[in-house]
Amino acid sequence: MPSYRAPVADTLFVLREVLGYDRHSNLPGFSDASPDVLEAILAEGAKLAENVIQPTNRTGDIEGCARHDDASVTTPAAFKEAYGQYCEGGWLGLAAPVEYGGQGLPYTIHSAVTEYMVSANMALMMYPGLTQGAIAALVAHGTDEQKDTWLPRLVEGSWTGTMNLTEPHCGTDLGLLRTKAVPNSDGSYRISGQKIFISAGEHDLSANIVHLVLARIEGAPAGTKGISLFIVPKFLLDANSLPGKRNGVSCGSIEEKMGIHGNATCVMNYDDAIGYLLGEENGGLKAMFTMMNEARLGVGLQGLALSEAAYQAATAYAKERLQGRSLSGPKAPDKPADPIIVHPDIRRNLMTMKAFNEAGRALVLWTALNSDISHRADDEDQRQAAGDYVGLMTPVVKGMLTDKGFEHAVMAQQVFGGHGYIEEHGMSQFVRDARIAMIYEGANGIQALDLVGRKLALDGGRALQAFFKEVGDFCEENRADEEMAPYTKTLKKGLNDLQAATMWLMQNAMAKPDNAGAASTDYLHLFGLVALGYMWGRMVRAAHDKLANGAGDNAAFYEHKLVTGRYFMERAMPETGAHLARISTGADAMMALPAEAF
Amino acid sequence: MPSYRAPVADTLFVLREVLGYDRHSNLPGFSDASPDVLEAILAEGAKLAENVIQPTNRTGDIEGCARHDDASVTTPAAFKEAYGQYCEGGWLGLAAPVEYGGQGLPYTIHSAVTEYMVSANMALMMYPGLTQGAIAALVAHGTDEQKDTWLPRLVEGSWTGTMNLTEPHCGTDLGLLRTKAVPNSDGSYRISGQKIFISAGEHDLSANIVHLVLARIEGAPAGTKGISLFIVPKFLLDANSLPGKRNGVSCGSIEEKMGIHGNATCVMNYDDAIGYLLGEENGGLKAMFTMMNEARLGVGLQGLALSEAAYQAATAYAKERLQGRSLSGPKAPDKPADPIIVHPDIRRNLMTMKAFNEAGRALVLWTALNSDISHRADDEDQRQAAGDYVGLMTPVVKGMLTDKGFEHAVMAQQVFGGHGYIEEHGMSQFVRDARIAMIYEGANGIQALDLVGRKLALDGGRALQAFFKEVGDFCEENRADEEMAPYTKTLKKGLNDLQAATMWLMQNAMAKPDNAGAASTDYLHLFGLVALGYMWGRMVRAAHDKLANGAGDNAAFYEHKLVTGRYFMERAMPETGAHLARISTGADAMMALPAEAF
Repeated sequence: MPSYRAPVADTLFVLREVLGYDRHSNLPGFSDASPDVLEAILAEGAKLAENVIQPTNRTGDIEGCARHDDASVTTPAAFKEAYGQYCEGGWLGLAAPVEYGGQGLPYTIHSAVTEYMVSANMALMMYPGLTQGAIAALVAHGTDEQKDTWLPRLVEGSWTGTMNLTEPHCGTDLGLLRTKAVPNSDGSYRISGQKIFISAGEHDLSANIVHLVLARIEGAPAGTKGISLFIVPKFLLDANSLPGKRNGVSCGSIEEKMGIHGNATCVMNYDDAIGYLLGEENGGLKAMFTMMNEARLGVGLQGLALSEAAYQAATAYAKERLQGRSLSGPKAPDKPADPIIVHPDIRRNLMTMKAFNEAGRALVLWTALNSDISHRADDEDQRQAAGDYVGLMTPVVKGMLTDKGFEHAVMAQQVFGGHGYIEEHGMSQFVRDARIAMIYEGANGIQALDLVGRKLALDGGRALQAFFKEVGDFCEENRADEEMAPYTKTLKKGLNDLQAATMWLMQNAMAKPDNAGAASTDYLHLFGLVALGYMWGRMVRAAHDKLANGAGDNAAFYEHKLVTGRYFMERAMPETGAHLARISTGADAMMALPAEAF
Repeated sequence: MPSYRAPVADTLFVLREVLGYDRHSNLPGFSDASPDVLEAILAEGAKLAENVIQPTNRTGDIEGCARHDDASVTTPAAFKEAYGQYCEGGWLGLAAPVEYGGQGLPYTIHSAVTEYMVSANMALMMYPGLTQGAIAALVAHGTDEQKDTWLPRLVEGSWTGTMNLTEPHCGTDLGLLRTKAVPNSDGSYRISGQKIFISAGEHDLSANIVHLVLARIEGAPAGTKGISLFIVPKFLLDANSLPGKRNGVSCGSIEEKMGIHGNATCVMNYDDAIGYLLGEENGGLKAMFTMMNEARLGVGLQGLALSEAAYQAATAYAKERLQGRSLSGPKAPDKPADPIIVHPDIRRNLMTMKAFNEAGRALVLWTALNSDISHRADDEDQRQAAGDYVGLMTPVVKGMLTDKGFEHAVMAQQVFGGHGYIEEHGMSQFVRDARIAMIYEGANGIQALDLVGRKLALDGGRALQAFFKEVGDFCEENRADEEMAPYTKTLKKGLNDLQAATMWLMQNAMAKPDNAGAASTDYLHLFGLVALGYMWGRMVRAAHDKLANGAGDNAAFYEHKLVTGRYFMERAMPETGAHLARISTGADAMMALPAEAF
């Protein structure tokens, strides 16, 4: 069984030495998590993930969820206790508002800790993950009364949340949705319709479930302009705001899925269920996007978390499994064979994952820090610049990190050879679990379209230009530094490719929108490589600085960063040229065939 | 449920118009499969695959195999009937020697038909697939008596075969194997030991199972030089050569795997089981490789077959699923939304799979044709040249086609969005099944090492040089042709990258073997792209010729080839430069970290 260890030292390196976390102590919440407190929180989170959450992962996969004849759903046996400890430790409300029982700490710390928890058990962590989305939507769009009613229980985790968007005939294209809302005289609504793929839709971990449901109020305009968001609790609240009468919502079935078996993915039937409008009438899509952006970052984090967990398992196996001899002569002559970590092609897999995980972690935390700044900074310009960055990077974090997360789960499984294909080693579960992250919260093709079709040109390309300038300036500033030059040279080449691809889009996609669609996935990956390469540039810069100032006993940690960064530049960055070449060919050959030719 | 249609027209195009199948009618077996007969065989095979084999695929995945208390194993309920019809139709013995009941037809036709069968149900087809390997080993290494005893039943499929290599502590590194063989006075041996991951090791489809087992004869040299191959039947034969007394071999357990649930993957325990030496004492590894090379081509074919099946399912869904509107204006204005095939990013997935499948099919059939020529041609030079080609291309076909097969199963699943993650649509099964092909018969990293470390330099690089010359000549011959130039220009660029990578290896891998290991997987993929690109070059050439001579009602078929070939050149070939760049960075950064840094 994989034995996961939370990469606390790496998180601290990124936060303190690369991102300058300590410089933000003026922001609300940050002062409550001083450097010492930060370290203590990460260490506590690591313990919980390693000792309490992780042991539930494999059993959760085996047991899965079960729906019973009375439409109730039970989760794997060990989940209740682990979820309880997670909630009791206050982890769910770590970054939630203090007035509703949260700790008001930075989202950055929440993200750092969530990586550990998801590495330990992704399926279990989806229950609080969906709840985070509901909290975000209520904080942003709820009336004071709604906030008082729903938030305290969600923040403590005694109630959980869900997002209800998808219907059998509509996923991406929400304009098609049919679920109906009929007004009652008391201001509430009666909701009827069917929703599918509802994560945590029904389960036994909480006393109530707060469904956030997209529906169409009778007489509303067609398409996306006629969609509203509703709060639909599983149990209606009584006079004391406690769960009382059962509402008209129930789980029709649970899906048999490839992975995340511990998560109850439900078909939810709404039959005149009482719902309360959240946000404005016909403003449901906008409200839903509040949840969705944060949820997308959370899904990107899942990609990183599974890549890390799978990498650690592969590493342990590669050090232990004896097979063949090193091409450069025996490395363990006293043993019948060398451990397979001596073989370059095994190393290639490990280094690829390692180089990606460390940069991915930096990218996630940088984005989370910007999210904090965008919400908490005093200065409007600073808030805007940070918000620009988060908006631009959200599809990149979601698309790139989940594509890579799956790829690396497969890679880690490959290190195990035939043993990786057998369920008992747990590598198949990583692959099966990681797969969903490429699909939900907007399939990665949709992320790519969001980036190319929406985010690039937003506000006259303000976010994009700021990012180009930041990376370009970094290269320029470090160009003369002999130690940095090999890194910045490759990064600059990647940036040039990205800028050329952007220019190509500006020149070719206006007149022919299919050229944008045809370029989108390559563009997202090209963007992701430059973003990750930039993270490596900054990590290498920080490592050099530390080594120059004397890293003491920790010198090896920093020297390894230099090697891993070099590997990323040499082995990952050459792909930018291939992406640019593909993008530049346009949509012609892609779109030329009639449908019947397929 | 996916509904598979065998691509008979495409097979015929490749065989006749691209590979000039009809020119080989002088070879033994080829004259029995004249153009008309060929077409009839493919049509019959298609019918069986579509109507009989395919319906067992999903149920086989759900039911899986079960081991009972008496160590017997049952396969999914529908398998017996389908396997019976496959054998009755003579499909197992299609290319087997006539004197043992086979039809002696070309291996090329066998390969063409096997693609259809594997697309329809990979797990089921593994039972006859392993039997093919046993037949090949017996034909090559058996005594006349052994051939007479075992081959007729194997060829008719009433008995099946297995390959027993792997032990718990040794997979790739067979030198470590411990299974023992103790000579009996009658010339037979007593075999004892444990083998794992034995496909079709125990099941209920045949009256006997002929295990081919690697073991070490008492007192044999250590390492790979002391390994012999044995025939170990499940039931010993009685005086009438019929299954009699049970031999000392049994299934200890079956593995719970990620996929191919319909295939019984067994732990096999040998306890003084009677075995008969096959081939020479201590010559087991060589004999095993006879099976293995053909098996590796068969596994490459599995990659293609699943890529094709998954592609077809994704195509059907993309034409049917309505979601969103085309970027260039509504294409189905009468419907609530357009079918998703109008979206470029969906097309990108479909075109990528289509362009690969068509070239992969050509590569498989070209390799199979060379295998036939290498065994059947009169002329020694021709046999040698064809054999060179098969040896060189075996790791490429295995490694490239299975990596791509899996990648495309994932891609096809992605087209389904959330529905792809639900087991009922069958897309998850394609992914789970395709995954194993990257691992067994030598993990793809081993294929890459075989290519770089063995095949390149073999016979002074004779095979490699011949391949380079053939592709180079093709580019040269077509360079002046305006219609061909866009294709050959890209192909030539790919060939240049491949030759540069080869040169780099010659200059850098002798002194430092880790540079070869560090390059190997990239080199295999670079090689694969050039090989597939060359197939596209030839297919486009054939299509142009046909169109120039008047293709009549079939013109669309040939015009689509031109588009699909262009797509491959534009979208797949840019990767050759990235591979070369990675290869040229060498092993330094890859190997620099100490094991404890991981």
